[in-house]
Amino acid sequence: MKQFTKYSIRNSLRRIFLYHGLLVRLNLMGVTRVFSHTIARETGVTPAQVRKDFSEYGIRGNRRGGYTAETLLRDMEALFNRDKISNVVLIGMGNLGLALSRHGRFAQRGINIVATFDIDPYKQKLRSDAQVYPMERLQEIVDRFKVNVAIITIPAISAQEVCNELMNTGIRGIVNFSPVLLKVPANIVVNNVNLSDEIESVIWSVHRNAKEEAS
Amino acid sequence: MKQFTKYSIRNSLRRIFLYHGLLVRLNLMGVTRVFSHTIARETGVTPAQVRKDFSEYGIRGNRRGGYTAETLLRDMEALFNRDKISNVVLIGMGNLGLALSRHGRFAQRGINIVATFDIDPYKQKLRSDAQVYPMERLQEIVDRFKVNVAIITIPAISAQEVCNELMNTGIRGIVNFSPVLLKVPANIVVNNVNLSDEIESVIWSVHRNAKEEAS
Repeated sequence: MKQFTKYSIRNSLRRIFLYHGLLVRLNLMGVTRVFSHTIARETGVTPAQVRKDFSEYGIRGNRRGGYTAETLLRDMEALFNRDKISNVVLIGMGNLGLALSRHGRFAQRGINIVATFDIDPYKQKLRSDAQVYPMERLQEIVDRFKVNVAIITIPAISAQEVCNELMNTGIRGIVNFSPVLLKVPANIVVNNVNLSDEIESVIWSVHRNAKEEAS
Repeated sequence: MKQFTKYSIRNSLRRIFLYHGLLVRLNLMGVTRVFSHTIARETGVTPAQVRKDFSEYGIRGNRRGGYTAETLLRDMEALFNRDKISNVVLIGMGNLGLALSRHGRFAQRGINIVATFDIDPYKQKLRSDAQVYPMERLQEIVDRFKVNVAIITIPAISAQEVCNELMNTGIRGIVNFSPVLLKVPANIVVNNVNLSDEIESVIWSVHRNAKEEAS
């Protein structure tokens, strides 16, 4: 249990990102002071939770008078180390891998995809606007660019094998888009992003709401 | 608060998807009986939480003797209505939209992208292997295919505007890949999927672990 709490993505961290998204919006709208109960209402948590999360991540602010939106934003961005660039690799240049490798927004967030990999030499040629390497060059590139984190967008069947290979090169964190739960040592961070789940959960919730409204 | 709890994606539903992913893996490995403490350990929650979630969604099983993996899987798939096809639309045919529109896995899950839309006539031509419609035809297609859910993969700047348009056509749920928190009426389900957040949270957690190990 402890291992999980330590090495997976904490819910509190997920909420910090949510608060950050809200603050960006409020800031654009010209809001200068913001209260924990406003953040709570807009993100669907309790005001006490918001304050607890801020405290856990060392985000300060005078809570009686509300927080200064700009200061909160600055504190969060310092927390995220946005002034530093993080080099990551991406494995699997199918449609999703290609889209992520071309995603403009990552650079704004200090996420730099230094190299992409695929086992298929055809994709290595076809996707020639991005630099696609064969897996044999993984270790060399991980070492050269001091890469800690990999994004994997490969079919389920090869995901565990590639994951093991990544562990051997010294990768410490994986963003897993393959629809399998990976087996990793306790000191590795894995974030499973299952796009089918994300869509299906909306379909299911809409369906349930319709049923509740009908009854 | 109540509205949020009702109309956003519940954490319990997220966990159900997680348990489902694990059960698929265990089933492939030939495991036939599974215990709540196994599910708990592998997904990082408590055994009591697993049982509570199963009970909330009406998933039965003899817990003293463990659950039959196959029965659990069948119960979950019945819950998800996987025998029914859900028609969804996708708005925004940039790189990510294109990748999602070509994503083979959705069909296996009963998610059918019936039409994709873009405001850019150039993309309507360029992406000609998928059917890309102009926004003017949204209402017609939503009506014809009884679409309840939309996926939006458009730039932040136009997300709220498109969201409002979707509300007018009668869409009840949105999977939002744009990096903005959308303003919607309380009876609309929104699931924000922020890919930058997903990657950045791994980078941050790896960084924190390295610091903790060093100290």
